[in-house]
Amino acid sequence: MRKIHVIGIGAGDPDQLTLQAVKALRSTDVFFVLGKGEAKSDLVQLRRDILDAHLSDGAYRLVEARDPDRDRAADGAAYSPAVGDWRSARADIYQRLIAEELGEDESGAFLVWGDPALYDSTLGILEEILDRGAVAFTYDVVPGISSVSALVARHRTGLNRVAGPVQITTGRRLAEAFPEGVDDVVVMLDAHQAFRRYADEDIDIYWGAYIGTPDEILASGPIAEAAPRIERLRAEARERKGWIMDTYLLRRRPRG
Amino acid sequence: MRKIHVIGIGAGDPDQLTLQAVKALRSTDVFFVLGKGEAKSDLVQLRRDILDAHLSDGAYRLVEARDPDRDRAADGAAYSPAVGDWRSARADIYQRLIAEELGEDESGAFLVWGDPALYDSTLGILEEILDRGAVAFTYDVVPGISSVSALVARHRTGLNRVAGPVQITTGRRLAEAFPEGVDDVVVMLDAHQAFRRYADEDIDIYWGAYIGTPDEILASGPIAEAAPRIERLRAEARERKGWIMDTYLLRRRPRG
Repeated sequence: MRKIHVIGIGAGDPDQLTLQAVKALRSTDVFFVLGKGEAKSDLVQLRRDILDAHLSDGAYRLVEARDPDRDRAADGAAYSPAVGDWRSARADIYQRLIAEELGEDESGAFLVWGDPALYDSTLGILEEILDRGAVAFTYDVVPGISSVSALVARHRTGLNRVAGPVQITTGRRLAEAFPEGVDDVVVMLDAHQAFRRYADEDIDIYWGAYIGTPDEILASGPIAEAAPRIERLRAEARERKGWIMDTYLLRRRPRG
Repeated sequence: MRKIHVIGIGAGDPDQLTLQAVKALRSTDVFFVLGKGEAKSDLVQLRRDILDAHLSDGAYRLVEARDPDRDRAADGAAYSPAVGDWRSARADIYQRLIAEELGEDESGAFLVWGDPALYDSTLGILEEILDRGAVAFTYDVVPGISSVSALVARHRTGLNRVAGPVQITTGRRLAEAFPEGVDDVVVMLDAHQAFRRYADEDIDIYWGAYIGTPDEILASGPIAEAAPRIERLRAEARERKGWIMDTYLLRRRPRG
């Protein structure tokens, strides 16, 4: 039976790999890497560096495929036909990779940034392929350090306050409204800096981009004060590198 | 200057340590371990096992202290005087450990289960000690695999659904009400199985105890069906081991 490892590789620092992830890498015959074209080739290279650091040269096969183009307008939207189409297109590619590139008794792996449990489609796609019944495999999941954990570690703060709740959500949802019933909110997938909408509220922001990499940028403070700084840092970095991956925590100050 | 590492050591599986955590262990002179008496001595032993696996015998000092007793009734409550008192009592102990057991140029470490960012008091306590100004030190945080990530990895499911939010909260809060605006809720620190209140709703539960250890127990299903099973498993395990550490995800099914 074919075997698949879905391996969380941490938020950007190669040392955020767990020992469990290293063992999973070493028990893998074929690595599948999906590229998004030139813009994110840095991320493909970071994955290669991780493999080279832990595996002997030539001890593994790496198969690259091109990610289907995605309707960017659908990013962060509620489950929409565009997202569904994209997932199915990706499932077609994964299915082909598993069926054609993996021998009956071999194991393959997908390396996922952060934690495969948070805003990543790999698990859903594997279930979709199994549902189709065209190729059989088993799979397991190796949890990883999420960008959420990495962000707050670098800011040396907790996610929640004493016995309080924390919500993790998307930029698109934050743009609609501040979540109800929580004062600590982590925002991912925000291409439009939705935090700016809350600049007149008593909220602190803890922001980070490329966390754990040599390009890491951190900024924090009351939104009103920090927002212009973050906008500038973000625009400069995006211009320089061609892509950006950022995350932030919003923390409402206790009402007087 | 004294230096402190706050090191997340994962949810129970020693292989969930990151390479970054191993490096931090190896750059530590003194490890501080707070015990809670016999009931949780398994957890102290697990920490010792981790140190023995990665450090040469006699290459480190380990200092044990006894945790202050806590008003258990205050567990999971909103920030209350009892919690505040307990934190200050703990800060007294930490301050003494740092001041008396750590030389001026030495580094000490606190090993935290899961991720120091989630429902752990170490960072808040260190800030309280710095605010007092009685002993100076710098500190950094090494993020860890949280029990939340470990739970859903073992269940091979995501935390969020496509572009949806997820909330992490306490058993006490869940007992008051199901959080607003989210259909995926992770519950920690629940001594009273608050999920039973929602047995007549269309909600699935993904439950786990001692995740990543040889004692791991997993159970899942619609709450109505799974709740009696989880209650029994939980009571048996607690009886057998004398303590339990469990976490669960509640996932509301899409409304037809």
